[in-house]
Amino acid sequence: MTNITTNITPIIWTGAGLKILDQRRLPVAELYLDCATVDTVAEAIVTLAVRGAPLIGITAAYGLAIAAREACDRGKLEALRQQLYTTRPTAVNLHWALDRGAAMIAALPGATMPELHDALLALARQIHADDAASCLAMARTGAELIPAGARILTHCNTGALATGGIGTALGVIRAAHAQGKVKMVWVDETRPLLQGARLTAWELASDGIPFTLNTDSMAASLMAAGQVDAVIVGADRITRNGDFANKIGTYSLAVLAHAHNIPFYVAAPRSTFDMTLADGAQIPIEFRAANEVTDFPGIAVYNPSFDVTPGRLVTRFVTEEGVLSEPRFS
Amino acid sequence: MTNITTNITPIIWTGAGLKILDQRRLPVAELYLDCATVDTVAEAIVTLAVRGAPLIGITAAYGLAIAAREACDRGKLEALRQQLYTTRPTAVNLHWALDRGAAMIAALPGATMPELHDALLALARQIHADDAASCLAMARTGAELIPAGARILTHCNTGALATGGIGTALGVIRAAHAQGKVKMVWVDETRPLLQGARLTAWELASDGIPFTLNTDSMAASLMAAGQVDAVIVGADRITRNGDFANKIGTYSLAVLAHAHNIPFYVAAPRSTFDMTLADGAQIPIEFRAANEVTDFPGIAVYNPSFDVTPGRLVTRFVTEEGVLSEPRFS
Repeated sequence: MTNITTNITPIIWTGAGLKILDQRRLPVAELYLDCATVDTVAEAIVTLAVRGAPLIGITAAYGLAIAAREACDRGKLEALRQQLYTTRPTAVNLHWALDRGAAMIAALPGATMPELHDALLALARQIHADDAASCLAMARTGAELIPAGARILTHCNTGALATGGIGTALGVIRAAHAQGKVKMVWVDETRPLLQGARLTAWELASDGIPFTLNTDSMAASLMAAGQVDAVIVGADRITRNGDFANKIGTYSLAVLAHAHNIPFYVAAPRSTFDMTLADGAQIPIEFRAANEVTDFPGIAVYNPSFDVTPGRLVTRFVTEEGVLSEPRFS
Repeated sequence: MTNITTNITPIIWTGAGLKILDQRRLPVAELYLDCATVDTVAEAIVTLAVRGAPLIGITAAYGLAIAAREACDRGKLEALRQQLYTTRPTAVNLHWALDRGAAMIAALPGATMPELHDALLALARQIHADDAASCLAMARTGAELIPAGARILTHCNTGALATGGIGTALGVIRAAHAQGKVKMVWVDETRPLLQGARLTAWELASDGIPFTLNTDSMAASLMAAGQVDAVIVGADRITRNGDFANKIGTYSLAVLAHAHNIPFYVAAPRSTFDMTLADGAQIPIEFRAANEVTDFPGIAVYNPSFDVTPGRLVTRFVTEEGVLSEPRFS
């Protein structure tokens, strides 16, 4: 296989802080936010300037390194860590990264704040590099599941803009394309925030991968027409029984894929699996503001950012440790 | 039951021509287009200033009366009728109304153009009044299917803005609400043109019926949460075996309702049933421009305006002739 790379850099550590590509502005403008404080990093996560489960974990890890520069003592450092921890509830990678940071802090009881900064920055770089490597491993194993001439439907954005590397589900698509197997990628626009129309379309266009945009409501029509050979999505949190949270609309796709006998794949790194939860009912689901859906005032809006898909609807999980039929790790 | 009415008048015959409420501008502006020629009526249909299967049938009937004023002879009249006939392919009510007009023209071989105008105008008024009466009959029989405390999900707009009366599916909801049985209406926003968010929300707010807006991709999440007691939609064309075309996203809802054991109702007048077609594969589906879905240039878009739902997924058809389990008329 040819090497698969991406030139997209959604976050850049500058030494002074983190430059974060403002994904709310894409594809119209490619502008970076200068985030040199915990406040600005947290705000970038809350406002979705940076998003994607693996990427917000990486971003928070860098944010914790910034926190160690900002804090005068360990109490303040922990308060800043909590500020990052509570930015978003659903994706577990955020908590996973910050828990690794907490363990490192606890393991260095005699360290000064500058020493903790150096250690936490090294950890953030490690988490970032590990995620890039995980993406490549997922892409290579996941591509084996894709048949020649495949028409693949995907949802939301799971690419370089969502990870530290080439992506999860979109990484698999990139690898399958590098093998010449991708005839078409159907891109769900992904209402309300259009991560498919704005971000996935932008990534696929950049890479010259053939794609067609559709509204989320058109996926069923494509399936009924025999135009979809596989559905592949990412995940924000996967529980022990295989239930998983992902961008709203994912559950709908899983039910539809099942009804049309189309394989339904979930690509996610080990850091997305939350083995402390027995099932999807225990995953906290984030609800967001009405104005993401409509500008008309005074209208009640139901706006969960995520839904939960039962594990029984998942054909395979693609991880950096291989392709799994259920969440079981050695 | 209290009488159910609406103050919404999507089209008004003025004597000089047709005033058409420009639904593309709703709910931001309530502006009428003056359509005194076949060209302007046809353009209003093509551009979706006026839409909804029953309403475009009624509009076309008035358009044919205008044609008889515009035409110098029967050949020209037929050409103008064809112009109206080909404005949109999927909804059969348009063809049904214009076929009735053609039959009337044929039945009056000695009539002058002014006489044909008078006859066709009377026919348009009759089709308009009949549709209003059909809406009321559908509403009354359909409301019997709705349980007390119902949470009802609907798609697109099937109300006063889609018909000559109180609506098809939305008429049923109005009647059920008048009976005190509606706890919540979940309104699919209905991408790409947002007929749910713009038109149905506007009608429900006007009537004081409780509703909540959701993106199309959230319907499955609501169903999984046990928040949907019934789904009710309209139709653009229903074939002999019960397969039907309706706004894109309807098929998705039908599959989801089936998977969640939720009754799925279709409300449509007799004029929507096309007994010349054996099944849904024979229904012509309209594809529309990419810019309805995205403003970003150079992106390939899949944009069918309709999908086809198999009759086996329909719990009941609500018509002005009663509630049917399949399309069988006496």
